[in-house]
Amino acid sequence: MFDLVIIGGGPGGLTAGIYSQRARLKTVLLEKQMVGGQIAVSDVIENYPGFPSISGAELMEKFESHARGLGLEIRFTDVLDIAVDGNVKVIKTSDGEIRTKAVIIATGAKPKRLGVPGEKELTGKGVSYCATCDGPFFRNLKVVVVGGGDTAVKEAVYLSRLAAKVYIVHRRDRFRAEKMHQEKMEAAENIEMVTSHVLKEIKAENNLVKSVLLEDLKTGGTREIEAEGVFIFVGINPTTDFADVDKDAGGFIKTSPDMKTSTPGIFAAGDCRTTPLLQVATAVGDGAIAAASAIEYVEEFGSGHN
Amino acid sequence: MFDLVIIGGGPGGLTAGIYSQRARLKTVLLEKQMVGGQIAVSDVIENYPGFPSISGAELMEKFESHARGLGLEIRFTDVLDIAVDGNVKVIKTSDGEIRTKAVIIATGAKPKRLGVPGEKELTGKGVSYCATCDGPFFRNLKVVVVGGGDTAVKEAVYLSRLAAKVYIVHRRDRFRAEKMHQEKMEAAENIEMVTSHVLKEIKAENNLVKSVLLEDLKTGGTREIEAEGVFIFVGINPTTDFADVDKDAGGFIKTSPDMKTSTPGIFAAGDCRTTPLLQVATAVGDGAIAAASAIEYVEEFGSGHN
Repeated sequence: MFDLVIIGGGPGGLTAGIYSQRARLKTVLLEKQMVGGQIAVSDVIENYPGFPSISGAELMEKFESHARGLGLEIRFTDVLDIAVDGNVKVIKTSDGEIRTKAVIIATGAKPKRLGVPGEKELTGKGVSYCATCDGPFFRNLKVVVVGGGDTAVKEAVYLSRLAAKVYIVHRRDRFRAEKMHQEKMEAAENIEMVTSHVLKEIKAENNLVKSVLLEDLKTGGTREIEAEGVFIFVGINPTTDFADVDKDAGGFIKTSPDMKTSTPGIFAAGDCRTTPLLQVATAVGDGAIAAASAIEYVEEFGSGHN
Repeated sequence: MFDLVIIGGGPGGLTAGIYSQRARLKTVLLEKQMVGGQIAVSDVIENYPGFPSISGAELMEKFESHARGLGLEIRFTDVLDIAVDGNVKVIKTSDGEIRTKAVIIATGAKPKRLGVPGEKELTGKGVSYCATCDGPFFRNLKVVVVGGGDTAVKEAVYLSRLAAKVYIVHRRDRFRAEKMHQEKMEAAENIEMVTSHVLKEIKAENNLVKSVLLEDLKTGGTREIEAEGVFIFVGINPTTDFADVDKDAGGFIKTSPDMKTSTPGIFAAGDCRTTPLLQVATAVGDGAIAAASAIEYVEEFGSGHN
């Protein structure tokens, strides 16, 4: 039996792994796809203290080698469910069951879809949720960015360096992004801001994106913009379906300040929990606290107190 | 008038500075002595993700240059008081007054010293005030823990998983810690309880801890214990006297999850607030959240919402 199973190999999970290895807990980290999580596909990160400018992939390689250097075991498998057997947690994975005293859920969150015609069919054929991954395919072409928050504005600026023209479509009349990002967007000559508009449909030709159809919320009229790419940044969904613990309306796991969930022995850290800010810096803080709480829980395990 | 004054130049304050500069807030960070705070005097830090092993001073230099690179102004002055003038905060310093819309208190906390010969000189050379930080350096060695409260007993149990032998020295004949923690301590085979003894001196060889000299309060006799590490847990004092906001019994500032204090426009981050863990990783998370909350507050300042 393991002392601790960490689910998710992003910044929160890897930090928890660093702390649990240092405390000599018998730990395994389970990752579905790729160590680093959402952040590993980020172009540049400039607000994780200590690294003024680094790619997401490079930063996550540093986290991974830090954790592996302390002996952390990482397995690639999909977690389907967490069952409770007495005070033992049974993690059901696509490769069988793993029994453990404690669990830290650090599965992060995934981008939301718009749910408009053309979106699903054209994903990977012009529709994208990751500028770093797909931006280079649109060099000297036209792209539409959808959204008004930090991510949308940041990625529009990034794409403006590659694409011939970037339209940023936002349903409100003002952007919500950090002022610094907005200033950069306004300074980019090839970004056109299309506010008070919503994207209604993505149209294709030969199974590739050809244009988007917008509705003007102020006049009710429509506008068609020709573009080869559509990048959607309209929010995120936490990856928490497999976990039967208390969650908020958005599906994010509710925790106490010490990262305890509603089930004793199950802790949560990072973007998958209700948190005021989704950043590497905050996931790291959460991961350290969740590990400290799990270490204390494991020390008491079987003493009759839990 | 400033948008934001950050009080304290440790990891929490510098992180808040990085975020506030990126948001283009007119910010100044006030530091009493030395940028980096408590952590700058740490010999080695091995649990801030991304840096497997780095000196505290070097890590804090990286934080400082990251923040300064974004244009953060740092002033060396002592904060005496925060007064409120309408919705403006007036910071009284040893060099005059500074008016600001928002304040982040990130002044940290200091462990209490025993005040015995050898303690100061050997700090970082075997004497430590943080088991999570320094415990792993004493794997398979002997350590002495000083104290009788929750922290001392908890950390003795934590250290017993790493060290070959743990002596816990307490001046009273009974421990004050929660029963649950005491039971775990009693169950650990390699913990020896040395009650009714006080530590009188820490002895060194080649400038590293070699032994401790104890006085038996019942007989007046002395005892020498050979050990490579001495962990002192006799209390921790937050630096919060100057701030008139709600605090817990220990003087730590009470905050909401988004780092708001009882006074609108005053936020707190890191070790000076009530928090489950005192680490660079957690101070960084707090600093990012406090800055995000302060940015929101400043954006709304004077709009009638605050």
